Amino acid sequence: MTNNAGDEPPFQKVALIGLGLIGSSIARSVREVMPGLELRGYDASADVRNRAASLELVDLLAEEVGEAVVGADLVILCIPVGSMADAAGSIAPHLGRGVIVSDVGSAKEPVAKALREALPEALIIPAHPIAGTENSGPEAGFAGLFRGRWCILTPERDADPDAVARLADFWGKLGARVEVMDAARHDLVLAVTSHLPHLIAFTIVGTASHLEAVTEGEVIKYSAGGFRDFTRIAASDPVMWRDIFLANREAVLDMLGRFLGDLSTLEQAIRKGEGDVLFDWFSRTRTIRRAIVYEGQDVAAPDFGRSS
Amino acid sequence: MTNNAGDEPPFQKVALIGLGLIGSSIARSVREVMPGLELRGYDASADVRNRAASLELVDLLAEEVGEAVVGADLVILCIPVGSMADAAGSIAPHLGRGVIVSDVGSAKEPVAKALREALPEALIIPAHPIAGTENSGPEAGFAGLFRGRWCILTPERDADPDAVARLADFWGKLGARVEVMDAARHDLVLAVTSHLPHLIAFTIVGTASHLEAVTEGEVIKYSAGGFRDFTRIAASDPVMWRDIFLANREAVLDMLGRFLGDLSTLEQAIRKGEGDVLFDWFSRTRTIRRAIVYEGQDVAAPDFGRSS
Repeated sequence: MTNNAGDEPPFQKVALIGLGLIGSSIARSVREVMPGLELRGYDASADVRNRAASLELVDLLAEEVGEAVVGADLVILCIPVGSMADAAGSIAPHLGRGVIVSDVGSAKEPVAKALREALPEALIIPAHPIAGTENSGPEAGFAGLFRGRWCILTPERDADPDAVARLADFWGKLGARVEVMDAARHDLVLAVTSHLPHLIAFTIVGTASHLEAVTEGEVIKYSAGGFRDFTRIAASDPVMWRDIFLANREAVLDMLGRFLGDLSTLEQAIRKGEGDVLFDWFSRTRTIRRAIVYEGQDVAAPDFGRSS
Repeated sequence: MTNNAGDEPPFQKVALIGLGLIGSSIARSVREVMPGLELRGYDASADVRNRAASLELVDLLAEEVGEAVVGADLVILCIPVGSMADAAGSIAPHLGRGVIVSDVGSAKEPVAKALREALPEALIIPAHPIAGTENSGPEAGFAGLFRGRWCILTPERDADPDAVARLADFWGKLGARVEVMDAARHDLVLAVTSHLPHLIAFTIVGTASHLEAVTEGEVIKYSAGGFRDFTRIAASDPVMWRDIFLANREAVLDMLGRFLGDLSTLEQAIRKGEGDVLFDWFSRTRTIRRAIVYEGQDVAAPDFGRSS
């Protein structure tokens, strides 16, 4: 969607609940592009709160979650999908009138449902920035994380269009390209572009590390043959990913079924020595890479620019 | 192994059969580190020969494969695994005495067998540099491709130790770390660290592009959620990979079976909502990434350094 992005920040006081990779990246980015905005933060972990304090990520670091949201006109829950219901319940008594409650979770239907149940009267606009790295924690964030990446908003049908536009403006100012989508469609699309790839990567890295026939030392030494690419996303946060698979279970299992069907086709081609089937398949997949680079969703440099 | 690398180039005249990514990278690297060495080259494709001529990759670009190897003391076949037998047969009448014949293929037992059958009297030392990018062709090569990467030699048991040491010296001079390994073990290790990851990546990229429920446009737009990582290796050369899967069929199918077993374990955990099983698995896979970075086999920068 087009953002009506003026020079004024769309919010005055933003509360970030959760100060890991995403929360701390939002904080850093806000500091850069909306320096007048007041930032409040909270994290359930005292250790993370201490590290966030050293990093001076926010103007007010709250010791209680309720304290963080008092007076805020935007609250963003930057926490694992499975913690949304509890967090929403905790902030409920402290929210002011007209505040927008949003999140950054990778599964939108279950989060929207959890937030709606905990906050029946609130202005809820779920969001998902398609951005991240394999690292976690407040030190891992950086201001440019959202630049050129997509952020998907999944407002309910009767959501206030003005509130949606303000949140879109906020993400646009952080550098993201904003899209509005139905929550169920988001969950299906992300099952393909994110959840299934992570499940496959977690699996194969586990398979390789469990082998008796090949030592872990060999797997690591010769990982540049392709394996190392999978280890990056298999190094992502375990709690975050446990919650995503449980929350988006149906779409993930559906996509997994399709993947297994295709894998069986290629397995049979290898078994029977059907080189043509393999060649045709591999020729088609090559074109997808080019489209992703063309659309600016990955670097054009060979080998992700690693070996140049 | 330790290389007895002196200042003298271990060979006088090297013939590169195949001038794609690997052949042209060897040529460029030789120019940099062994400028006195005479380079001869050939490619079965007239188009590739013309492009190699424009790039001035070699001193003598042969129009016939036999012409390229005349007088060479090292011949390296830089061609798809399935073309090795034919190429070896074509060069057989033109090889001089004492020449070492090597290759760069990703499956070593079948290549060793093909070369031995075509060249029963030759000094054959198969090799495999664990290096590459998703790009192909003579323009894709670069001098630093082998720097810090492993190159595995799989000589027969009765191979001349001096010849093995010379080839090891050659690869060491190109910047590679050299290891000697049994061919069968190589094929098992590479099935895990390279072949299975490629098969999985080819499959999932195909799965995503065949979906009716999600458009290809959406898959591309939101690929930064993880999918794009898979598209890189699924953009690799289709002929090269067709040949590898057919050549290393048994080890690939064995590893695929193990992967499918593990995937079924995680699928069941998602289906039954067993969060602990998922959390434990994802926590283990995180450590492998750290070991690969520690061993210098990948960059430490988050997101492969793409988003910084």
